[in-house]
Amino acid sequence: MALINDNFIKIPSTYLFSEIAKRVAQHKENHPEAKIIRMGIGDVSLPLPDASVDAMIKAAEEQRHAETFRGYGPEQGYAFLREAIVLNDYKSKGINIEIDEVFVSDGAKSDTGNIGDIFSVNNRVAITDPSYPVYVDTNAMGGRAGEPDKLNVWSNLVYLPCDTGNNFVPQLPTEKVDMIYLCYPNNPTGTTLTKEELKVWVDYAKENKAVILFDAAYEAFITEENVPHSIYEIDGAQEVAIEFRSFSKTAGFTGTRCGYTVVPKVLMGYSEKGEKVALNKLWNRRHSTKFNGTSYVVQRAAEATYSTEGKKQVKALIGFYTENARIIREGLVKAGYTIYGGVNAPYIWAKAPEGLGSWEYFDYLLKEKNIVTTPGAGFGLSGEGFVRFSAFGSRQDAIEAMQRLEK
Amino acid sequence: MALINDNFIKIPSTYLFSEIAKRVAQHKENHPEAKIIRMGIGDVSLPLPDASVDAMIKAAEEQRHAETFRGYGPEQGYAFLREAIVLNDYKSKGINIEIDEVFVSDGAKSDTGNIGDIFSVNNRVAITDPSYPVYVDTNAMGGRAGEPDKLNVWSNLVYLPCDTGNNFVPQLPTEKVDMIYLCYPNNPTGTTLTKEELKVWVDYAKENKAVILFDAAYEAFITEENVPHSIYEIDGAQEVAIEFRSFSKTAGFTGTRCGYTVVPKVLMGYSEKGEKVALNKLWNRRHSTKFNGTSYVVQRAAEATYSTEGKKQVKALIGFYTENARIIREGLVKAGYTIYGGVNAPYIWAKAPEGLGSWEYFDYLLKEKNIVTTPGAGFGLSGEGFVRFSAFGSRQDAIEAMQRLEK
Repeated sequence: MALINDNFIKIPSTYLFSEIAKRVAQHKENHPEAKIIRMGIGDVSLPLPDASVDAMIKAAEEQRHAETFRGYGPEQGYAFLREAIVLNDYKSKGINIEIDEVFVSDGAKSDTGNIGDIFSVNNRVAITDPSYPVYVDTNAMGGRAGEPDKLNVWSNLVYLPCDTGNNFVPQLPTEKVDMIYLCYPNNPTGTTLTKEELKVWVDYAKENKAVILFDAAYEAFITEENVPHSIYEIDGAQEVAIEFRSFSKTAGFTGTRCGYTVVPKVLMGYSEKGEKVALNKLWNRRHSTKFNGTSYVVQRAAEATYSTEGKKQVKALIGFYTENARIIREGLVKAGYTIYGGVNAPYIWAKAPEGLGSWEYFDYLLKEKNIVTTPGAGFGLSGEGFVRFSAFGSRQDAIEAMQRLEK
Repeated sequence: MALINDNFIKIPSTYLFSEIAKRVAQHKENHPEAKIIRMGIGDVSLPLPDASVDAMIKAAEEQRHAETFRGYGPEQGYAFLREAIVLNDYKSKGINIEIDEVFVSDGAKSDTGNIGDIFSVNNRVAITDPSYPVYVDTNAMGGRAGEPDKLNVWSNLVYLPCDTGNNFVPQLPTEKVDMIYLCYPNNPTGTTLTKEELKVWVDYAKENKAVILFDAAYEAFITEENVPHSIYEIDGAQEVAIEFRSFSKTAGFTGTRCGYTVVPKVLMGYSEKGEKVALNKLWNRRHSTKFNGTSYVVQRAAEATYSTEGKKQVKALIGFYTENARIIREGLVKAGYTIYGGVNAPYIWAKAPEGLGSWEYFDYLLKEKNIVTTPGAGFGLSGEGFVRFSAFGSRQDAIEAMQRLEK
């Protein structure tokens, strides 16, 4: 009898986006004339950089001819892309990452989800709250989360609340943990950690032989000094951290699909017998056994983001969203709201007016202002009482939404 | 302390292809003048169909402009591709598969590897021997394989030997199994099952509530009647089988990356309490939690293989390799070798002359004939005494290699 992985049936349905869609549809039915502005989206709206499109077309043409055709590539990614990554994202910033520490993939969602494969089911996992739901759900699937209660709080996860009480800086857990998910700049709160604040976690991980799973998908949006772009800016972090990066939000690759994961060779895990095992070797084995490389044309498109033209175009994309974020931040403040984030991230985390929950605030903004946001409660218990505004929409929408709120 | 998944350290290093490379390099050093023909490759050599390249370029141009840009797509794949798959690969052949039973991915390697996520670690797994190493390795990683012995035979796997003794038709296991990996047309042997032979397995699965994981990556190479292209040609198979398909070998997508998996809605697994659970729902959850959709441009390229032009071009590709396979088959027979497969598959499974093992036969072909093959022992114990010839090379190489052997 084929038994299923029972952990799957414990996971509650993800109703967040379907519930939003339902409420928006209902509102539209009641008010067909309403001009709705969508500020809930986590997807980009600007097209791919020209440099990436050009590179993709050139690569596609290569695939047309036997002399230039490429079949199976290295599972870990082509050297041309891994070299560009190492050079531009690390070496140029004084961080010594080697090519064989970089694993190109089809995106950070796959990697942050699949990384659990190489870890024991018995590890204690800490997750910042609120957080990107993939961390929680994939640990639940992998058997590390225990049982969920009525509020979807899992018995074996250690939640690290991030809220106004700690200015969104997670505090060290009181019980010992083995794996720690950190995402900075943060989705959904848009907040960051300084180098000193991140160092606290690196030190904790060293002391406890824990591993930090550092999701840096939004690093391109950092505008302030002293906010680390990579966890490896912290001394010794290579001994304790895996870093996830993505071309999705940086260069508009949400539908093109490319990301990468860095697993330093000095980073160790431990077998049940207590032997040190290099996680780089394990991830290499996982990646080359369950994955067959990212599409060649996509890798060429990703490489092009590091060309002179590509860098300019990426900078323009990020600049556009950053300006949207500024407009939203300032508009929300002018309108009297209390907000967080949005300076080094495309997300603004807005506190609901006193006495309103996430969904009530969401409903108010939808019904009174025709603005769609994402209720913070969808990202975890500590997200209750907030909504997320996204800066990924159009300039016009950002401006008009803020005008409506300021009224 | 971050514990690793100890199963990873049990898995022996894959030395097959590195050992081949080493021996070839050594031979080249000893005989720099040797004109080596590579017939070990599992990768295609002909370029992408024009229809796919054209579609990819058109899609890339769409990604350049905001009006036509596509960000996140459905994790399960775009409707345009899922509809084309359902229509061309199933409905046109009288098989009733629905769109929401098809999950587009970046390839069959990922899917055959990841499918284990939704199954219990306690299932007993049967695997044909020899086989594609991913089935064994991913079950080992998932904890279903037990312990390997010195010959890399895993204690908890049930091996189904396929050799000359049973004419490469696996026999039902004597102990009860819950998951059964079948790959037909087979990699590496190039042999097939008739509908009647496959029906035996469907019946077994029904009776034992087992699930068949049917890898049909090579179905496009079938030339004979009565060889099923899909396991769903067998009555009732939708209740017991998941089918994996790939554009890799069919349309030259090895470096472009696209495949799909069919999980019928009537297919059930069982919870530990014995409740029926639809595997379609579980795989949908897995796929949408740990994967973010296949690249838009790649899905357009895959869709184009179903256009009128695309179908013609794919047929030409397959025809080319099929003719190579005929040349290799007939050449090997003329040269006095005993061979299997190669009629409905791009692989020919050649028996080593009496008294020679796989590697000795490999060495003989390399040293005496300057031909590189793949030693059958690399695919499992029952592969010992065979080598695999691949038909994916050039016409000229196929002809010349056979001339050398016939001498």
